[in-house]
Amino acid sequence: MTTDQDRKRPGRPPGASDTRDRILSVARDLFARNGFDNTSIRSIASGAGVDGALVHHYFGTKTQLFAAAIHIPIDPMSVIGPLREVPVEEIGHVLPSLLLPLWDSEMGKGFIATLRSLLAGSDVSMVRSFLQDVIAAEVGSRVDSPPGTGRVRVQFVASQLVGVVMARYILELEPFRSLPVDQVAETIAPNLQRYLTGDLPALRAID
Amino acid sequence: MTTDQDRKRPGRPPGASDTRDRILSVARDLFARNGFDNTSIRSIASGAGVDGALVHHYFGTKTQLFAAAIHIPIDPMSVIGPLREVPVEEIGHVLPSLLLPLWDSEMGKGFIATLRSLLAGSDVSMVRSFLQDVIAAEVGSRVDSPPGTGRVRVQFVASQLVGVVMARYILELEPFRSLPVDQVAETIAPNLQRYLTGDLPALRAID
Repeated sequence: MTTDQDRKRPGRPPGASDTRDRILSVARDLFARNGFDNTSIRSIASGAGVDGALVHHYFGTKTQLFAAAIHIPIDPMSVIGPLREVPVEEIGHVLPSLLLPLWDSEMGKGFIATLRSLLAGSDVSMVRSFLQDVIAAEVGSRVDSPPGTGRVRVQFVASQLVGVVMARYILELEPFRSLPVDQVAETIAPNLQRYLTGDLPALRAID
Repeated sequence: MTTDQDRKRPGRPPGASDTRDRILSVARDLFARNGFDNTSIRSIASGAGVDGALVHHYFGTKTQLFAAAIHIPIDPMSVIGPLREVPVEEIGHVLPSLLLPLWDSEMGKGFIATLRSLLAGSDVSMVRSFLQDVIAAEVGSRVDSPPGTGRVRVQFVASQLVGVVMARYILELEPFRSLPVDQVAETIAPNLQRYLTGDLPALRAID
């Protein structure tokens, strides 16, 4: 129990770390089981025995809580937000230009360890859920031409971006891993744009 | 010690499995430390205390031994061989057309478990070595225009192919995972061809 005398000490109230960890633990469990869209802050707060306002206080938005839960040290909205302002014909170029510097800066900080454990463990369902519920919804609706292709178009983009992460940071292919980010971004940009807005006759509209 | 009476029993001579496993173990160690090119059958045989001919007897070529060492249930030459006959302007289409059916058939047989342990463990260096020494040498020399770009061109191709594996078999994005192989191959083919023979102004010749 926290008394007025305890609060005079600087830093977090006693027990705050436990509460924060408990919220993260409940969040991880619910995100993994039910997916991003079907998990509410309310259900997480309830599972952790706290008020929803406290969850927002510690973590911010549901997206930010999700990023913390799967140990991504960046806020996905720092990419999704700017992308909303970008004309659809330029997303193929802007998306890797935003992501690659982020990855390069985080990779040196142990992001690789996160990625490996992610691939080896159960967090994959959370990554999948995030990619499908958040990213696909954001971008997919803007490239849904012909109707029904938006979701899969974005997944082809994801396959190229995930492959860049694998080749550059996990397999560490040389010279791919040492290329300046702008050279990688410029080289893949037209390929990504083709997936987003190009003619893809092999794909019939997915129901 | 194996006697004539033992040999009358059907199946392998006693101790054959031990020998086979010992060869694989030595191969794994040497491939991981020195890379594919710098490892000889002779050195593996020597390390396992057997004759080089026995190594060939159990495993075939060095490439086949390598595939067995990193648990790839296919012979890489079943892809590399046919690819040699393909005009360079068609590799972008033929390569995924060969690989995707292979992956689809193997994935159901526990290849995913192999991939995960590969990503989590030390075998990554062997995969890197194989990709760099064998694949890049095979295809890279054929697309080395302007001179010095062949290796990195192939690595961009690798980034897209590895990304397909990640999206389809590890992340299992829907509907990407359920697309017929020909639709995936046809959709990525022009992108791969651009990496191989297209104009890539962002890449200066790599020394």
